[in-house]
Amino acid sequence: MTRPRGFGSDNHAGVLPEVLDALAAVNEGHASSYGHDEHTARVEGLFRREFGEDARAFLVFNGTGANVVALRAMCRPWDGVVCAESAHLNVDEGGAPERVGGLKLLTVATPDGKLTPDLVATRLVRFGDEHAVQPRVVSVTQSSELGTLYTPAELRALAEQARAHDMLLHVDGARLTNAAAALGCSLAEAATGADAVSVGGTKAGLLFGEAVVFTRSELADGTLYLRKQSMQLASKMRFAAAQFEALLEGERWRSTAGHANAMAARLAERVAAIDGITITQPVQANVVFAILPPGAAERLQRDWAFYTWDEHTGEVRWMCSWDTRPEDVDAFAGAVEEVVGSPVR
Amino acid sequence: MTRPRGFGSDNHAGVLPEVLDALAAVNEGHASSYGHDEHTARVEGLFRREFGEDARAFLVFNGTGANVVALRAMCRPWDGVVCAESAHLNVDEGGAPERVGGLKLLTVATPDGKLTPDLVATRLVRFGDEHAVQPRVVSVTQSSELGTLYTPAELRALAEQARAHDMLLHVDGARLTNAAAALGCSLAEAATGADAVSVGGTKAGLLFGEAVVFTRSELADGTLYLRKQSMQLASKMRFAAAQFEALLEGERWRSTAGHANAMAARLAERVAAIDGITITQPVQANVVFAILPPGAAERLQRDWAFYTWDEHTGEVRWMCSWDTRPEDVDAFAGAVEEVVGSPVR
Amino acid sequence: MTRPRGFGSDNHAGVLPEVLDALAAVNEGHASSYGHDEHTARVEGLFRREFGEDARAFLVFNGTGANVVALRAMCRPWDGVVCAESAHLNVDEGGAPERVGGLKLLTVATPDGKLTPDLVATRLVRFGDEHAVQPRVVSVTQSSELGTLYTPAELRALAEQARAHDMLLHVDGARLTNAAAALGCSLAEAATGADAVSVGGTKAGLLFGEAVVFTRSELADGTLYLRKQSMQLASKMRFAAAQFEALLEGERWRSTAGHANAMAARLAERVAAIDGITITQPVQANVVFAILPPGAAERLQRDWAFYTWDEHTGEVRWMCSWDTRPEDVDAFAGAVEEVVGSPVR
Amino acid sequence: MTRPRGFGSDNHAGVLPEVLDALAAVNEGHASSYGHDEHTARVEGLFRREFGEDARAFLVFNGTGANVVALRAMCRPWDGVVCAESAHLNVDEGGAPERVGGLKLLTVATPDGKLTPDLVATRLVRFGDEHAVQPRVVSVTQSSELGTLYTPAELRALAEQARAHDMLLHVDGARLTNAAAALGCSLAEAATGADAVSVGGTKAGLLFGEAVVFTRSELADGTLYLRKQSMQLASKMRFAAAQFEALLEGERWRSTAGHANAMAARLAERVAAIDGITITQPVQANVVFAILPPGAAERLQRDWAFYTWDEHTGEVRWMCSWDTRPEDVDAFAGAVEEVVGSPVR
Repeated sequence: MTRPRGFGSDNHAGVLPEVLDALAAVNEGHASSYGHDEHTARVEGLFRREFGEDARAFLVFNGTGANVVALRAMCRPWDGVVCAESAHLNVDEGGAPERVGGLKLLTVATPDGKLTPDLVATRLVRFGDEHAVQPRVVSVTQSSELGTLYTPAELRALAEQARAHDMLLHVDGARLTNAAAALGCSLAEAATGADAVSVGGTKAGLLFGEAVVFTRSELADGTLYLRKQSMQLASKMRFAAAQFEALLEGERWRSTAGHANAMAARLAERVAAIDGITITQPVQANVVFAILPPGAAERLQRDWAFYTWDEHTGEVRWMCSWDTRPEDVDAFAGAVEEVVGSPVR
Repeated sequence: MTRPRGFGSDNHAGVLPEVLDALAAVNEGHASSYGHDEHTARVEGLFRREFGEDARAFLVFNGTGANVVALRAMCRPWDGVVCAESAHLNVDEGGAPERVGGLKLLTVATPDGKLTPDLVATRLVRFGDEHAVQPRVVSVTQSSELGTLYTPAELRALAEQARAHDMLLHVDGARLTNAAAALGCSLAEAATGADAVSVGGTKAGLLFGEAVVFTRSELADGTLYLRKQSMQLASKMRFAAAQFEALLEGERWRSTAGHANAMAARLAERVAAIDGITITQPVQANVVFAILPPGAAERLQRDWAFYTWDEHTGEVRWMCSWDTRPEDVDAFAGAVEEVVGSPVR
Repeated sequence: MTRPRGFGSDNHAGVLPEVLDALAAVNEGHASSYGHDEHTARVEGLFRREFGEDARAFLVFNGTGANVVALRAMCRPWDGVVCAESAHLNVDEGGAPERVGGLKLLTVATPDGKLTPDLVATRLVRFGDEHAVQPRVVSVTQSSELGTLYTPAELRALAEQARAHDMLLHVDGARLTNAAAALGCSLAEAATGADAVSVGGTKAGLLFGEAVVFTRSELADGTLYLRKQSMQLASKMRFAAAQFEALLEGERWRSTAGHANAMAARLAERVAAIDGITITQPVQANVVFAILPPGAAERLQRDWAFYTWDEHTGEVRWMCSWDTRPEDVDAFAGAVEEVVGSPVR
Repeated sequence: MTRPRGFGSDNHAGVLPEVLDALAAVNEGHASSYGHDEHTARVEGLFRREFGEDARAFLVFNGTGANVVALRAMCRPWDGVVCAESAHLNVDEGGAPERVGGLKLLTVATPDGKLTPDLVATRLVRFGDEHAVQPRVVSVTQSSELGTLYTPAELRALAEQARAHDMLLHVDGARLTNAAAALGCSLAEAATGADAVSVGGTKAGLLFGEAVVFTRSELADGTLYLRKQSMQLASKMRFAAAQFEALLEGERWRSTAGHANAMAARLAERVAAIDGITITQPVQANVVFAILPPGAAERLQRDWAFYTWDEHTGEVRWMCSWDTRPEDVDAFAGAVEEVVGSPVR
């Protein structure tokens, strides 16, 4: 019997079997620590293959670490970061950007988790005014926290706007593989125009590990120091590198992330047909957001793991992962039907 | 053929086979993330068994993270930390204590990496003076960065001194297992009197992972928040927990750390007999410090990995690990004999 | 001939003559530094008389310093501060709350610069969730940055809401004297329910100096250290204290702040009658906000100092101060009439 | 009758009469705030006259603020500052360099409060090693906290050493006027080779105010933002500027600081003749350090203000200021004679 696979998070999933194999394969003898090993060299090469010959990659422990290291590298002490109100950076990083990075976030309300040049423009004020934090970086999440996607053209427009204001574009790509799989493009295209990308590994099936990738090497100056100081430097780095090798080689991520996306589409299709359920965001990657009739979420949560996204509206989040099975989706959809169809309290 | 096993660092070593097995064993189905899983619950229980029923453990990514989280939990914004000048905290954490933690370190020069009540007393001044950072924590490293050990009685004296000044004792136990194995005592006894302990996992044979253990639960308040904010919260926590279970269950660490200690003793015995070599610190745990004739270190480093510890004196560090083999020691000692016996340049 | 008195800011004004006299009066012989002098003791007594016997006051240099010291004293490292988007704290402190204080601001859009319990409630979520900064303080500005006032009843409602969530109320009183003068109440009543108040001195006619006042002494623990560490401790404190004595004795502020308020009312009355001008906020304290026909602001700014408040809408701010003269108001209102009445470009 | 003038600190003294006059003189009408006024422009010119045409000056509130702003401008996040253990920066700034600036201080023990190239060299290690804070600035105090002076040649040697390592020289000149008066040179010569200077005003007779001066304008980039963010930007800046004008015009500081120096020399001469007193530092500026027989300091402190400098040795500090009178010195020296000559307990 296998444990249930819920819809709580893509980090409730385990590790890709190929990743475990890779860990075993590199566990032989000694290797220099802190990234001075052949596996790290190889994974750095893989990132250059993805993001261009001038790109530089730094492996870190987790997504908050990746974002904070990337933004610390891009910002002077008086700089701020324009992001969506719903950005992970803003709502789920425990204040690390502010307290560890000293960064002020210049947030923008969005209907769908996505910035647009018009929305960004509302924060591009007071340049040169010493009393105000200076807008320096635009940070977008691809795929967004609400499961929506930026097209390469949309990203290019944001990048051009940023450049026109001497600003930089950061892509929080905790789920960049889901975006690229959905868009049918490369990782680099899914982060079009980015100066820096946080490339997610954990949600894509690694045990741990994310990468900070600068698409131009000059931005990477000092990042070795910032990564260490931000407490994101793994000593036995070969084991982080080996995992990324397994993920990137032959674009293994494309099938696993694509599968997660397909499971979300399947789930959306099933529940959309149920009376009384509103799907609240376009389902473009591996997650479904919905509002259920009062009480229904609580009843479902007795048996199934998933989160209430908005305490005020009761909106829920159903996340699929690389190991979600069609039968998990079907069983859950069935449970939703049963609960929502049945009289509620 | 196997890769050479040098003496550069105990984090050049790989992962205990039992740890890899444990990773595979827990890689089944879904589990709640961020520590809300059964493996984390079990490893928390193991730490209570070690450190007492009121102890609370928090798994983190790395040693710098463990120290900074522990000290952030113990210090108010105006508090400082008394430590040895040679403390990892002071010399090898890239300024994280200062920049991430905002902590001032009140350092003390020591001959052997060990604090004593007399040395600590030199920094216990200006209590109540708002112009001076207030001494709040004494932090010792067990075994020390110089491979020396604190006896439980020595730790007790430091703890009593701390308490008498309303201060706390922190033990940086990145190599606590080596200390406990050498002292023939429990992990808790090797950290006698500590209010908080950074318990090392990586150097003891894990892939990654350290634990912050508070011996009294009241100190742990807020640490959930501090760990997250310090970017030390692993999402797929079961994989960190499983590693610690493998290390702690049946005191597996005792034989592996004991072996590393024995290899250092073997090496010390061999090289002590060589004319022209001075062993500079008592060899009590898993490391040998030595000064070689001029030029010898450089010649040895062509074939063997190890670090020059002091750029000024040329002192070198030879670190043994859980997987150092007697034949590695013998081959290296032979090389030392050859190089130091032979004319230099 | 006297220099023009514009409407740029109440800190374009000089210093009350009585304040200058007080500086001269205390400039005799030696006095202990850093607040250990009789003038500081006396001004601390004046603040206790205003805010209650358990109140504790700490003089600081400037308004940003006052707010950051107050909030650092109220917040643990993982705590956040609910405030209006238009709060000085959020838009005019150069990122000091984030970088110096490590604080995350949980901002709320408001029409008039004022928080209400309903607005605050939108940010009172995710208590106990380690991934989210914890709401700890509600900070309001009295009078607000938009010149509006909180009634004591409105403040009481906010304080009660805060207390019900184990939170605290902070009042940024950079213009608390204007508020109290307008409300016809004491400074303490103008900060009803506050746990901490930043009491403004500079805009009220001092050369420099603000006070952080805690209404309950237990909150003040550690503030001596925080003030020093926040670089807000004046060495020759008697000169800060003497200024506050001059301001507080006999409620001198009531007439000076009341005068500034009256000048704003006079200005509002004059310009409200001009076709094509929209006054955008209730004029309750010492400032008028208005939108002029396109181009008019630029023409007026050739001769008169005032700021454009909103780059997007062109809204302007006209601030009156203790030394604004009726003839300044009349001359300026005349200029507005001339410019707005006349054809633009 | 006048208040007693003790030897506690040069910030126990009041304000130069010319400074008070200057405050009154500028208190007329309105002036732009935050430094956009004619007095600030004039004082910036005076600093260029002193430190060269490419120099840029920023007025701040206090000495800790000046040091932290200067060092923040000079350091990247991973940089450290070499300074004497006795530096104000290290022992008297309440942890502001660490917590506000995020800076690690790389301290050096000195016999006399002065760095030398040999002493600095001990900290110039591990360049390029990401685990170690990178030495970036050498900070010296002129005159030093122990009342000793650097000759211009000594400073030049430190500056050359710094430059050779791509580092910068900072001079904490809280008492730079005393140094320049004693050396008989300009302020700039007293800070020979400095890239940045904290020029003290408060101890020189101002009410408040220090200046951060960069001798090359390129270093000043961003300092407007850093000053604001560090909460060191005065709104009514004309009153800070007017004070500096009064101090710098016609080198008024030379006679006042020179007088303070002369008073220290007079005191040293008197007490050196007393049996049982050891003067512990060369008396080169405006302070005398001494060790008295046991109990003598406590008896003297009943009537005279001065500090015990070292809790362990009992060493005391006697500081003279611009307003110390010969009769104060003589009366105090007489008291010392009486107490030290008389049997103690």
